Amino acid sequence: MQYPYPLLNPPPFVWTKDENNPNPKVHEWIQDLSHQQGAIDWDHFDVAIMGIPLSRSSISASSASENPDAIRRAWKSFYPYNLEHDVDLTELNVVDLGDVRQHVTDIAQCHQNITDAMAAQQTHHPNVFPLTIGGDHSITAMLVKGWKEVHPDQEVGILQLDTHFDLRSLEEFGPANGTPIRNLIESGTVQGSNVHNIGLHGFFNSKSLKDYADHVGLHYKTVRDVRKEGIDSIVKDALDQLSKKVDVIYLTVDMDVLDMSGAPGVPASTPGGLWTSELFEAVHLAGQHPSVKAMDLVCLDPVKDVAQMTVKTGVHVMLSFLTGYSQRKNA
Amino acid sequence: MQYPYPLLNPPPFVWTKDENNPNPKVHEWIQDLSHQQGAIDWDHFDVAIMGIPLSRSSISASSASENPDAIRRAWKSFYPYNLEHDVDLTELNVVDLGDVRQHVTDIAQCHQNITDAMAAQQTHHPNVFPLTIGGDHSITAMLVKGWKEVHPDQEVGILQLDTHFDLRSLEEFGPANGTPIRNLIESGTVQGSNVHNIGLHGFFNSKSLKDYADHVGLHYKTVRDVRKEGIDSIVKDALDQLSKKVDVIYLTVDMDVLDMSGAPGVPASTPGGLWTSELFEAVHLAGQHPSVKAMDLVCLDPVKDVAQMTVKTGVHVMLSFLTGYSQRKNA
Amino acid sequence: MQYPYPLLNPPPFVWTKDENNPNPKVHEWIQDLSHQQGAIDWDHFDVAIMGIPLSRSSISASSASENPDAIRRAWKSFYPYNLEHDVDLTELNVVDLGDVRQHVTDIAQCHQNITDAMAAQQTHHPNVFPLTIGGDHSITAMLVKGWKEVHPDQEVGILQLDTHFDLRSLEEFGPANGTPIRNLIESGTVQGSNVHNIGLHGFFNSKSLKDYADHVGLHYKTVRDVRKEGIDSIVKDALDQLSKKVDVIYLTVDMDVLDMSGAPGVPASTPGGLWTSELFEAVHLAGQHPSVKAMDLVCLDPVKDVAQMTVKTGVHVMLSFLTGYSQRKNA
Amino acid sequence: MQYPYPLLNPPPFVWTKDENNPNPKVHEWIQDLSHQQGAIDWDHFDVAIMGIPLSRSSISASSASENPDAIRRAWKSFYPYNLEHDVDLTELNVVDLGDVRQHVTDIAQCHQNITDAMAAQQTHHPNVFPLTIGGDHSITAMLVKGWKEVHPDQEVGILQLDTHFDLRSLEEFGPANGTPIRNLIESGTVQGSNVHNIGLHGFFNSKSLKDYADHVGLHYKTVRDVRKEGIDSIVKDALDQLSKKVDVIYLTVDMDVLDMSGAPGVPASTPGGLWTSELFEAVHLAGQHPSVKAMDLVCLDPVKDVAQMTVKTGVHVMLSFLTGYSQRKNA
Amino acid sequence: MQYPYPLLNPPPFVWTKDENNPNPKVHEWIQDLSHQQGAIDWDHFDVAIMGIPLSRSSISASSASENPDAIRRAWKSFYPYNLEHDVDLTELNVVDLGDVRQHVTDIAQCHQNITDAMAAQQTHHPNVFPLTIGGDHSITAMLVKGWKEVHPDQEVGILQLDTHFDLRSLEEFGPANGTPIRNLIESGTVQGSNVHNIGLHGFFNSKSLKDYADHVGLHYKTVRDVRKEGIDSIVKDALDQLSKKVDVIYLTVDMDVLDMSGAPGVPASTPGGLWTSELFEAVHLAGQHPSVKAMDLVCLDPVKDVAQMTVKTGVHVMLSFLTGYSQRKNA
Amino acid sequence: MQYPYPLLNPPPFVWTKDENNPNPKVHEWIQDLSHQQGAIDWDHFDVAIMGIPLSRSSISASSASENPDAIRRAWKSFYPYNLEHDVDLTELNVVDLGDVRQHVTDIAQCHQNITDAMAAQQTHHPNVFPLTIGGDHSITAMLVKGWKEVHPDQEVGILQLDTHFDLRSLEEFGPANGTPIRNLIESGTVQGSNVHNIGLHGFFNSKSLKDYADHVGLHYKTVRDVRKEGIDSIVKDALDQLSKKVDVIYLTVDMDVLDMSGAPGVPASTPGGLWTSELFEAVHLAGQHPSVKAMDLVCLDPVKDVAQMTVKTGVHVMLSFLTGYSQRKNA
Repeated sequence: MQYPYPLLNPPPFVWTKDENNPNPKVHEWIQDLSHQQGAIDWDHFDVAIMGIPLSRSSISASSASENPDAIRRAWKSFYPYNLEHDVDLTELNVVDLGDVRQHVTDIAQCHQNITDAMAAQQTHHPNVFPLTIGGDHSITAMLVKGWKEVHPDQEVGILQLDTHFDLRSLEEFGPANGTPIRNLIESGTVQGSNVHNIGLHGFFNSKSLKDYADHVGLHYKTVRDVRKEGIDSIVKDALDQLSKKVDVIYLTVDMDVLDMSGAPGVPASTPGGLWTSELFEAVHLAGQHPSVKAMDLVCLDPVKDVAQMTVKTGVHVMLSFLTGYSQRKNA
Repeated sequence: MQYPYPLLNPPPFVWTKDENNPNPKVHEWIQDLSHQQGAIDWDHFDVAIMGIPLSRSSISASSASENPDAIRRAWKSFYPYNLEHDVDLTELNVVDLGDVRQHVTDIAQCHQNITDAMAAQQTHHPNVFPLTIGGDHSITAMLVKGWKEVHPDQEVGILQLDTHFDLRSLEEFGPANGTPIRNLIESGTVQGSNVHNIGLHGFFNSKSLKDYADHVGLHYKTVRDVRKEGIDSIVKDALDQLSKKVDVIYLTVDMDVLDMSGAPGVPASTPGGLWTSELFEAVHLAGQHPSVKAMDLVCLDPVKDVAQMTVKTGVHVMLSFLTGYSQRKNA
Repeated sequence: MQYPYPLLNPPPFVWTKDENNPNPKVHEWIQDLSHQQGAIDWDHFDVAIMGIPLSRSSISASSASENPDAIRRAWKSFYPYNLEHDVDLTELNVVDLGDVRQHVTDIAQCHQNITDAMAAQQTHHPNVFPLTIGGDHSITAMLVKGWKEVHPDQEVGILQLDTHFDLRSLEEFGPANGTPIRNLIESGTVQGSNVHNIGLHGFFNSKSLKDYADHVGLHYKTVRDVRKEGIDSIVKDALDQLSKKVDVIYLTVDMDVLDMSGAPGVPASTPGGLWTSELFEAVHLAGQHPSVKAMDLVCLDPVKDVAQMTVKTGVHVMLSFLTGYSQRKNA
Repeated sequence: MQYPYPLLNPPPFVWTKDENNPNPKVHEWIQDLSHQQGAIDWDHFDVAIMGIPLSRSSISASSASENPDAIRRAWKSFYPYNLEHDVDLTELNVVDLGDVRQHVTDIAQCHQNITDAMAAQQTHHPNVFPLTIGGDHSITAMLVKGWKEVHPDQEVGILQLDTHFDLRSLEEFGPANGTPIRNLIESGTVQGSNVHNIGLHGFFNSKSLKDYADHVGLHYKTVRDVRKEGIDSIVKDALDQLSKKVDVIYLTVDMDVLDMSGAPGVPASTPGGLWTSELFEAVHLAGQHPSVKAMDLVCLDPVKDVAQMTVKTGVHVMLSFLTGYSQRKNA
Repeated sequence: MQYPYPLLNPPPFVWTKDENNPNPKVHEWIQDLSHQQGAIDWDHFDVAIMGIPLSRSSISASSASENPDAIRRAWKSFYPYNLEHDVDLTELNVVDLGDVRQHVTDIAQCHQNITDAMAAQQTHHPNVFPLTIGGDHSITAMLVKGWKEVHPDQEVGILQLDTHFDLRSLEEFGPANGTPIRNLIESGTVQGSNVHNIGLHGFFNSKSLKDYADHVGLHYKTVRDVRKEGIDSIVKDALDQLSKKVDVIYLTVDMDVLDMSGAPGVPASTPGGLWTSELFEAVHLAGQHPSVKAMDLVCLDPVKDVAQMTVKTGVHVMLSFLTGYSQRKNA
Repeated sequence: MQYPYPLLNPPPFVWTKDENNPNPKVHEWIQDLSHQQGAIDWDHFDVAIMGIPLSRSSISASSASENPDAIRRAWKSFYPYNLEHDVDLTELNVVDLGDVRQHVTDIAQCHQNITDAMAAQQTHHPNVFPLTIGGDHSITAMLVKGWKEVHPDQEVGILQLDTHFDLRSLEEFGPANGTPIRNLIESGTVQGSNVHNIGLHGFFNSKSLKDYADHVGLHYKTVRDVRKEGIDSIVKDALDQLSKKVDVIYLTVDMDVLDMSGAPGVPASTPGGLWTSELFEAVHLAGQHPSVKAMDLVCLDPVKDVAQMTVKTGVHVMLSFLTGYSQRKNA
């Protein structure tokens, strides 16, 4: 079989599945194209996972490129059943498309491939929800641009969970992991006022970035705000505001939004961040909202992880989002 | 001296104690039989600790068998005084009976020894509270069966703190660490409706287990429930309900109920679990309740631990329970 | 240039600074004397940092002596801008004076140097706020004594964030990290009733120490109290009470007050402690209070750290305090 | 496709292969049955790999059960070309049959499955060389017994690379990882004098085991002997002696024969062992010898590994053996 | 002072030096330009160190970009005196020029800067020996090209200590860390027959690369050869052959040539490599040889290191080379 | 029972022993005084072990104070039978006297206790061989002085296995771990020419120390010498020379003599050191020599250890020495 998405490689490995298992685990539930018999029924899929093994565009050294495979290995320990919400994810059809092709020394080519892959996905199967596993945060600019190529008339908003603004200078850094939101604003892809960033904390943004954010009308909430107002209220409010302004909400989860006690495996991880349970609530709410049409999860470096804590959290984020997404579909 | 409990070995090592220390630490306060002069005054003891160095019955590879000794080494850093409740534990007489004998390749024999050890303990010294340090969770089924052998007319209920139901199929796994509650229900030792499980979270139970739990009338609360209702309220309510239905409440603490940021040393540790302070509150409340007659602590794997965090938490759980137990005695 | 503080060595290394950087990071903002041109304008400085690389006076083996340099290396990752309070720290002038000289085998000499260094600092530049980075907790007794040498008529109170009373016997341990508060009380430097300790938890103080604390009228709050009353309320209340009784409040932060999930790099770290966000709030409030005239941060052992978590937390504590201090100056 | 070996499960995962890669890596070269089209041409295979994920029969707690998968993941980093001997392994056809089925709590059943799997392999495809990846050392007794079931008239000898005799009492331990050689001798499967053990060192065998070894005429060489005589000479001599006495030499490699500086990932790893390069030489020589008809590699615990050192060494051992095996075929 | 090398940044930090220390350690001996008073006397320097914090051109994820600073921190533990050869390095004048500027997302620009920096160094101070600390192995191609720009008529040979050929396809990978030697050969910078590679081992080069090496007449020796012939003999022989063919020998040390027991901090580290003492001998011999005119040390990833072992080895390699270089000067 | 050695505390813990075990492990073979019935038969003992939990006198931060207990825990994994030399250590009677008392803040008192303990041991039981487990290297000066107090007329020589001279200035450091040999020479306890140091390597001694060593006639051999001449020859030669000059040889083993690949758990561990097997040979030879009358093992820091490698090596050093000692007795 020729691989139908020429910009992607199949997943590097596939789990052997017991087709008759009445209680499949996540690795038995998530499908891959190599196991499809005959013509692929694309209408069948609800969600497509794409891995992006790129982190050479990270400002600080990162092995986030190894994250897509780390996530694939770790999800073997999970069941696609959310007891806390009594949601059975096996009603969703999720396919792992594999990894977007990357080049070793040509970062611009890597980025073009990412844009093209998102564009192809939305061109050919616009009803399949794209869930992207990074990679560093530079990919978000490329993915949103790919989306806009296919949907030029849609107004896109960003719901960002992050400890940084990611508004650093494109002149200085290029399309790195510190610049994707600036990139989207300066390129006219997204309006500054259509970005809602939740979870900023600590001493990790210069004052000039905050001034820029204010200048472009970007909305943001700190972890201190979250503790006072509650994560539910803040996320619902952001979704509510965004959905009034935009056609599509793109959700981007930078794992450095988490407190490092629960997420040591992020190069920029710090104390004072969100608890994992707060992040799970946040993405669960986003999953439920009909305007959220794409999601990525970035900056998780499995090589820096301790006791596989952050990778497990990454899987949990993905499944929490899908719990909400499943509820949305059944609503 | 011949060891009075033939099914147990003495603790593998004993701490040297300064008999005149006016401020003994935990290792100087907990007694062992080898230091008893003359005939042992069994009426003297309030609590008997038994170690169970068994984890070859664990589904995933585990070194929980090394936990009893890890706990014994770690408790040297603790004082038997709880400042937060102003409770002086030295008023309790606690003896470390040592470890139940295990066989290297005959798991059935290991399990029989555990049942027999609990039965012997309850036969000869029924007024001494048995506090068991595992080992994997398979031991709970054996311990409760041992209790029932001696007290066949007592209705036994279970207060379980766990992220799993432990209701997996006995046919498939045998008496493993995923099956003890199923084992107790199917063997008629405990009624399903007399099991209260608190702390379930995440994606670690298949839907079929939840359906089974519902079918047998098992009660359960998730971490999400705990955050909404408060650990105090939930535990008190479970104790209250149970004490109306049963004669004896058996408390079993699976350390995987904890959030892995505070408990990396558990093979099945995950994000989204209880905070250690919530678990300390829970067992403290159980310690105070007059119906709680036995306790175990399982699935702590010291080899997987980071910075000795989970083992210290294990000691803290034990001492928090004994704080409540001391208050119960003085009430 | 001869180093103006003969009891201190310059910092072991200095970061290369881009003088023209409009967005300096912390290592570019904090000054050192070796980069001063011509005569030093001491009136220019608001805060002086002193490192104390001493931990051979620790009861348990500790590498807290390596902490001052670990903090200096880690602060390169931080910006001197607090987004959560919109405070720009670059308005403060902070100088790193370097490390107080220590002797390898003469602990008494080490301690005398610390007292002398604080006395010299307060003699020559009494308007510069001394912020000391330990080292183990024995240094607090020496620093407060140095302060009192210069200000003999001031009544000094202590705001202590700690899981221990640090009231152990001087006869048994000498001026170790378990005895500084006892040392200050017994030497008549500080009255017991002018010590407020917040954050005690767990089983790490013998009952006799609690009795001594009660006897001398020391005030204390446990983590359990913090969770019930809130860290803000408890810290504000302590500052309020203290400021009515004393002329000067000395703030001492023992990092073992933290829950070990967020602070594995402390020899005595335990479960059940403060969250890092609670500690950040506490020192931020203390920074704002006009009576707080000196601060130290102790018992952080970078060799025991995991994923650099505790060292980053140490920097965060320092910057959170300075955020409050900046607000105090601008109030 | 029904799996042709009913006692085995297919490998838990398979690597995606680029069929057109002119320079395949090991994971692209080793075949699996799920990728076979139509009827499997068994005559095609030279070597069959079987994983045995069993370590609950280990005396000390071990995660060697996770080793087969760890080896499968690690071999992705290797090329099937040995530059030091200029041997291209792609001329060999190697198939990964998957893992012998194990039971969670019935060790006897696990062991029976292992014996049966070896018997089936030798019954149906006696010309395919069986290379088994453990698992703990208990499996060796089971594998040799399976061999003997099919080839009852063959005299089998053992070439053992090990720091232990593995002659401990069957009465005390059962068929554990300390007893396989005793098991084979006492069951009459192998004569004591047909066992050659190389690499014993340190203080890890009681004198009584040495006396037993002498009593049954077992041959052994210590690491000290290896250093004096050279690993080549000692291995060649053992192969030479054995091949005069037996029909078949079974090679068993216990990774604890290695010095722990190069093999931290073995529960019983100690200083004073073989260098990895010595072990590679040893198995390379065994691979060349026509009498060596089966091999296993045991007691590698990837959870205890440091920097993936021991797992990489395990792959290297396997490939070094196959280098010799390839030379044998081409000789 | 404006920095005299515009393509370099000064070292990120400088150690504070005791100018009067009669026994300076390495950090007090190695000079930096910021401490030079008045005009810099360039004739004064024997050796210039340049750091290259680039590893985004590495095929596998690497933090070798953090190595120059890791080396600078670690050399504080060393004395510039080699007892084993009784050589006092303080007779050499060594300056740390700092780091070649890198771009976050433009690898081609990074590489151009490296070439330019070497060209500038050789243009302005051709008598100062350039010792470069990488970074990944891609930099070697850039450095040799920079050299050739200034010395177009010199025939350059390469003495490479490496476990890989580094001859992978430029078409596939671009100027990555797997291709520098191919790059130099294909660009006509160096003739294949003027490359001598020592230390190849294991299964980490495809057969096609070996065929290419043979095709271009490249010379190579494996670790097996080293063990048989001795490192001294092999290195001397290579230096001898090279010096007859070329004007300049460029020494490149890829730390993956080492056995991973002593060098876990290399992404491609494997068992079966050189002992550290063999590598120290090799570079010591190269240091003595008058034709060796430049050196680099690459692929050391301090983030992957264990117990700082590999970083210390890196410093040791540098000082061992300088020991030979000092002997050369005094010969 | 009152403890007969007032300067020592009993071992902090004692292993439970099976008195009837025909194959005791090391922890069952080594005796302690608390298990002696009635009057102690001191003539019965061949060797007395003393622990010295002191490392606050170390120049760099060290937890070597935790080593005596780490060694006691680790020896449980060893048998007292040396297969490589066929020596059964159970013929020796070895007693663990416990730990010399230490003070938290008075290093001079600690050192006096050590001297007094050795003097008491030699006064009361001069025929029992003292084997001391440190602690840092400062203790060696104290132990030798204690010996000389009792045996003032004996000429004492030192066989030192070390990567350092330990000849640093007493004026600068006091009696620290860098000065013990200087201390002994300057105090007239030992003549410089009666010190033989084997294993120096790397860049860890300033030239001035080498000049001092030459000045006082100290003998030394580097690791490079060891590799050329063989460890056997060098050690035998040193013992031979020493025994002609002195009455008593004191053996001191600083674990930093080892290559750090096998001994990461030493604060000053470096590459380029002795292999563990070379050290085992060295101490085995010393054990056999009749002039060697006392031994210590220092500078092992179990907190820095990796995979328990260095602690196991420490036990192996002790047992290798005792193997030789046993052969001496039986010679």
